Amino acid sequence: MAADWLSPAEREQFLMELKATGWVEVEDRDALYKELHFKTFNQAFGFMCRVALQAEKMNHHPEWFNVYNKVQITLSTHDCGGLSKKDIRLAKFIDKVALSL
Amino acid sequence: MAADWLSPAEREQFLMELKATGWVEVEDRDALYKELHFKTFNQAFGFMCRVALQAEKMNHHPEWFNVYNKVQITLSTHDCGGLSKKDIRLAKFIDKVALSL
Repeated sequence: MAADWLSPAEREQFLMELKATGWVEVEDRDALYKELHFKTFNQAFGFMCRVALQAEKMNHHPEWFNVYNKVQITLSTHDCGGLSKKDIRLAKFIDKVALSL
Repeated sequence: MAADWLSPAEREQFLMELKATGWVEVEDRDALYKELHFKTFNQAFGFMCRVALQAEKMNHHPEWFNVYNKVQITLSTHDCGGLSKKDIRLAKFIDKVALSL
């Protein structure tokens, strides 16, 4: 949706903020990526559950890989052909949840 | 643990059963792989939650990737350097849960 498009200035601002918390831009597509490490599978999957509920509520879902205590997340918005405000919102939520664990 | 090792005959039998339900052997390592498709993210992540509880109970965790309604799972046993009875048990549990959805 057009409401989710990022202006160039918004994009620059949000990318700066998210890069400061460990997000990186994906090389071959317009997407954000972060790898998170937890103490245990319990913590990693507990984190994923919280993100899944939020993703479902937003109707905006991550691409993610998990093995034991590691979670790798890629965010992009298919409908927008790349990063959108939805990705920024989900990335910030992910950071908030990860900090709380 | 030695108790989890597969004899050649067991391995052949179990691989035959699991290949019949869509599992494939991974090319470059001793592991099993399956891709599952659900109707929605709700179903896919609900499935992952059931598998996660079982994995934690078994202390044997999958490597898995999810995007929306798709889940890709790789099973292998680090301690055994490849497939073990734990993988077979988890694969059968995964098939049972997937069938129930």
